[in-house]
Amino acid sequence: MSSRFSPKQLERYPIYLKLLKEERAKGETVVSSPKLAAVLGYSEEQIRKDFQAISTTPGIPKKGRMISYLIEDIESFLGYTHPKKAVVIGVGHMGGALMNFHSFPDMGLTILAGFDNNPELIGEEVGGKKIFALDDLQGFTKDNPIDIAVIAVPSAIAEEVAQKAYACGIRAFWNFAPVMVTLPYDAVIENVNLASSLAVLSHKIDRKTSMNQ
Amino acid sequence: MSSRFSPKQLERYPIYLKLLKEERAKGETVVSSPKLAAVLGYSEEQIRKDFQAISTTPGIPKKGRMISYLIEDIESFLGYTHPKKAVVIGVGHMGGALMNFHSFPDMGLTILAGFDNNPELIGEEVGGKKIFALDDLQGFTKDNPIDIAVIAVPSAIAEEVAQKAYACGIRAFWNFAPVMVTLPYDAVIENVNLASSLAVLSHKIDRKTSMNQ
Repeated sequence: MSSRFSPKQLERYPIYLKLLKEERAKGETVVSSPKLAAVLGYSEEQIRKDFQAISTTPGIPKKGRMISYLIEDIESFLGYTHPKKAVVIGVGHMGGALMNFHSFPDMGLTILAGFDNNPELIGEEVGGKKIFALDDLQGFTKDNPIDIAVIAVPSAIAEEVAQKAYACGIRAFWNFAPVMVTLPYDAVIENVNLASSLAVLSHKIDRKTSMNQ
Repeated sequence: MSSRFSPKQLERYPIYLKLLKEERAKGETVVSSPKLAAVLGYSEEQIRKDFQAISTTPGIPKKGRMISYLIEDIESFLGYTHPKKAVVIGVGHMGGALMNFHSFPDMGLTILAGFDNNPELIGEEVGGKKIFALDDLQGFTKDNPIDIAVIAVPSAIAEEVAQKAYACGIRAFWNFAPVMVTLPYDAVIENVNLASSLAVLSHKIDRKTSMNQ
């Protein structure tokens, strides 16, 4: 399933959005790519291309683009105007933190409930959302169509849990377990792997250290 | 600062490591790239190249590589044998979850303490580590050399807090705030941006939906 948007490009839009909202809050109405390039460290050309790809209105020659239109275009492109419904599976430290995240609704994600097998958690609330037994997922999804399963269980059971969610009709998976999960071809998966992110950071540190010696 | 390892390649090593440890736990001693390719969905050639790049011992022709040597080589390459010392700045939901993460020591990261400005948190313990006032960071880093500042504060103060940590001599930043921070050229930064990750997932969902219509 190829896309004309690369993951790297997609990752930049929320960052633009954040900055554009800050500019708007300061009372700015127009933004130029040289200005954004200076703040973000991307090239002016890349910024122009990124905006061109999703913009529904033309820019103002020699000035830039209207901030309010750009914000609307990016929010619409990212689907923030039609939030996706999610459940969090695994309400440990990470799952609990995600259920408490107040900014997800602004990012187009509505978490409806948590699921866990720990009897001490079942029936409790985290971040204002109820926690159900994992066995209740099937019944829950019948009444509440779910777009995304947020997987935050230990690695050892991540695949089993993801397959259970798939069997309940969920086709998109945001996987925070540090392991790959294998699902049928019609499932989409995005991994947030902290071990991988840390590996990139550690390598940068070690290279810097060895260059300074 | 270029490297012969791309971020994508670096991100794969913790994933190999996880799988190799599982294979070892099952009693396996040798692993082949076709087998890993089938499980992970990478190409055999990519796996062979990745191992070649960090391996200190040759493979066994037609069989594969010794799992125990590979695990040692990857752990050494990723710096897991010499863990880096970190502090978490901002002990909200995300910062607290990170302080509670039991698997960081196995990923080469030791969190020594948390820092926050909330008087209700200062003096408390999270995940067995004490929380100090942000103003105590300078004194703390004098006694405890810190490799990495984990930034988990709200976006609005992320840059200010990162600059404070930089002024205390910290040169590596693992940034969980959904905003870019600007630091002098000798700082290394790795961002974990949940909004960006969610943007990639949402785009995959929207493309799938539009293709099925």
